[in-house]
Amino acid sequence: MTSTPSGTATPAEVRAMRRGLEIAALGPAVGDHARVGAVVLAPDGTVLAEGWHKGAGTPHAEVDAMAKVDPALLRGATAVVTLEPCNHTGRTGPCALALIEAGIGRVVYAIDDPGAHVHGGADRLRAAGVEVVSGVLASEAEAFLERWLLSIRLGRPWVTAKWASSLDGRAAAADGTSQWITGAAARQHVHEQRAAHDAILVGTGTVLADDPSLTARGDAGELLADQPLPVVFGDRPVPDGAALRRHPRGLVTLPGHDLAASLAALRGHGVHSVFVEGGPTLTSALIAAGLVDEYLVYVAPVLLGGPRVAVDDLGVGSMTDRLRLDVTSTTSLGPDLLVRARPHGAAHPGAAAQNDRSTR
Amino acid sequence: MTSTPSGTATPAEVRAMRRGLEIAALGPAVGDHARVGAVVLAPDGTVLAEGWHKGAGTPHAEVDAMAKVDPALLRGATAVVTLEPCNHTGRTGPCALALIEAGIGRVVYAIDDPGAHVHGGADRLRAAGVEVVSGVLASEAEAFLERWLLSIRLGRPWVTAKWASSLDGRAAAADGTSQWITGAAARQHVHEQRAAHDAILVGTGTVLADDPSLTARGDAGELLADQPLPVVFGDRPVPDGAALRRHPRGLVTLPGHDLAASLAALRGHGVHSVFVEGGPTLTSALIAAGLVDEYLVYVAPVLLGGPRVAVDDLGVGSMTDRLRLDVTSTTSLGPDLLVRARPHGAAHPGAAAQNDRSTR
Repeated sequence: MTSTPSGTATPAEVRAMRRGLEIAALGPAVGDHARVGAVVLAPDGTVLAEGWHKGAGTPHAEVDAMAKVDPALLRGATAVVTLEPCNHTGRTGPCALALIEAGIGRVVYAIDDPGAHVHGGADRLRAAGVEVVSGVLASEAEAFLERWLLSIRLGRPWVTAKWASSLDGRAAAADGTSQWITGAAARQHVHEQRAAHDAILVGTGTVLADDPSLTARGDAGELLADQPLPVVFGDRPVPDGAALRRHPRGLVTLPGHDLAASLAALRGHGVHSVFVEGGPTLTSALIAAGLVDEYLVYVAPVLLGGPRVAVDDLGVGSMTDRLRLDVTSTTSLGPDLLVRARPHGAAHPGAAAQNDRSTR
Repeated sequence: MTSTPSGTATPAEVRAMRRGLEIAALGPAVGDHARVGAVVLAPDGTVLAEGWHKGAGTPHAEVDAMAKVDPALLRGATAVVTLEPCNHTGRTGPCALALIEAGIGRVVYAIDDPGAHVHGGADRLRAAGVEVVSGVLASEAEAFLERWLLSIRLGRPWVTAKWASSLDGRAAAADGTSQWITGAAARQHVHEQRAAHDAILVGTGTVLADDPSLTARGDAGELLADQPLPVVFGDRPVPDGAALRRHPRGLVTLPGHDLAASLAALRGHGVHSVFVEGGPTLTSALIAAGLVDEYLVYVAPVLLGGPRVAVDDLGVGSMTDRLRLDVTSTTSLGPDLLVRARPHGAAHPGAAAQNDRSTR
């Protein structure tokens, strides 16, 4: 028996959890998996090994960590994991079983696994006599995994809506010209955001008007390592000669106008996050349907006036119906301003706060 | 003879000029006058007195300073003034003459007086044998007096355009409701900006739609000491019962649609700065006519969509015709963001830079 009260982590375990969140971030940010980190501690709190998940089909974090330790040392050791160990045989075996078989005496984790067919790991561990502590640095872990958690809980990808506009809210001049409303720094930032999402989403109107390539590119125009899947919503066909047809990830087209159903279909294909690049019709429809989780608005120091607003009708009749946002940051990108925002009240409360449930 | 080379200020004089700009700011920020500061120095650089202009009809800064000094000490003393001493008999006599009659030996000033009927002070001083040095801290003085200098040079008031909009560029919801798009901190900032301008300008459409009072008020709703003159542009009559008719400064109405002529008329009435509070039609017309010198855009973290844009058509057909701005600051005001900007290239180059013409 340990002297630690049940349900409370030791300082060494809290430090290990913090480290677990750091190394979880070493895993790929995109793809059909959660980024998880794990640290194995000896009974005296010494770190025996660290591990993290490197993407779908590879060992989970706790298994990755245990593989680096002499099996004899695992007996009675503590595994600190940022997500509840799974209880599911998928492309890898259930982690709960691996921990039990290795003789791990204590498991400390941050947040429950929300997946319907994978949870139960904690119960299985407890049933096998393993001491289990949960909720350690839970807010930090929730914030770190927010896109993936939302996609599991809601059955649709996390949706980031992006637009670039003039200071007066226009996306283009009267004749439709929009290049380049923002400067090089903002455009490069957009490319990095593309690479940080599983898919880029546009409407057919944007394909026909702008013929975008929707690739994530670096400063010199080179393709970045992570290329999001290009997705087109809408009924009009993508022309044979469209730049999108030469995208390295291929092209997904989803006809129809049931946005929620189309997003759910994307989620079914392993897409956990989409980056919406317009145009105004699609973006406005997603906003009006309450399907946007984060806004990235690049505001250029220009005035355009005229009819080509960046956002169309949102179904807001009166000020009392306004869509309130919480601005999470404003950042200068060269001459432009990036405003990041979320639906009011939706920002994860633990994103900035410390969780001290686990500190004594 | 002094040992200082002609046309160069001594370190004591540069220090005195910097002090002169500080005390100039003690004068009223609004009204038909320039804010000027003056410091009288003994031949050894000791400060004998300071003075500043306290508003139209009161003694000019150099006369205010000299009045505080034993006349015997003024003989051979140096007057450091932030603006060229005037050569004009208006509500006060010409300062150049007062300096000559007092026996001042040397005058150091920052910038030439741009007024057609008041300049020539420096020439008159030189003709009387007074040593004159100009251009000392000229950039700082230009920046400090920019509104007044523009109004003298262009024959129209400095025009600050203000609007509050949602993040998507709307000034109101579809039904016209706009209160309160921004929060208390932004609204209070607007009241302070009103008090810092000679006049507030609205179109008749705004009067009829919003019935604004256009007073500058404090936190508790109390009237601030400086009340701008309310001005209405347009042909539709201001209703008898309009709140504007109870404004403590009275009401100026200027019919017709020649914006430049109406602004010139205001300048003729001693208005050196106007704060434009809309609506979109008037603001857009001023922007399109190139008559806006500064922009204050209060951006609220809400989305509204719909037809009520904060800025209408600006005559921008294509991106190459976009109206480029230089953002001078972005400031958080509670949940809102204030973006201050100027027409591209119009920001006074000396506003932030140091002028070292006068330092050795």
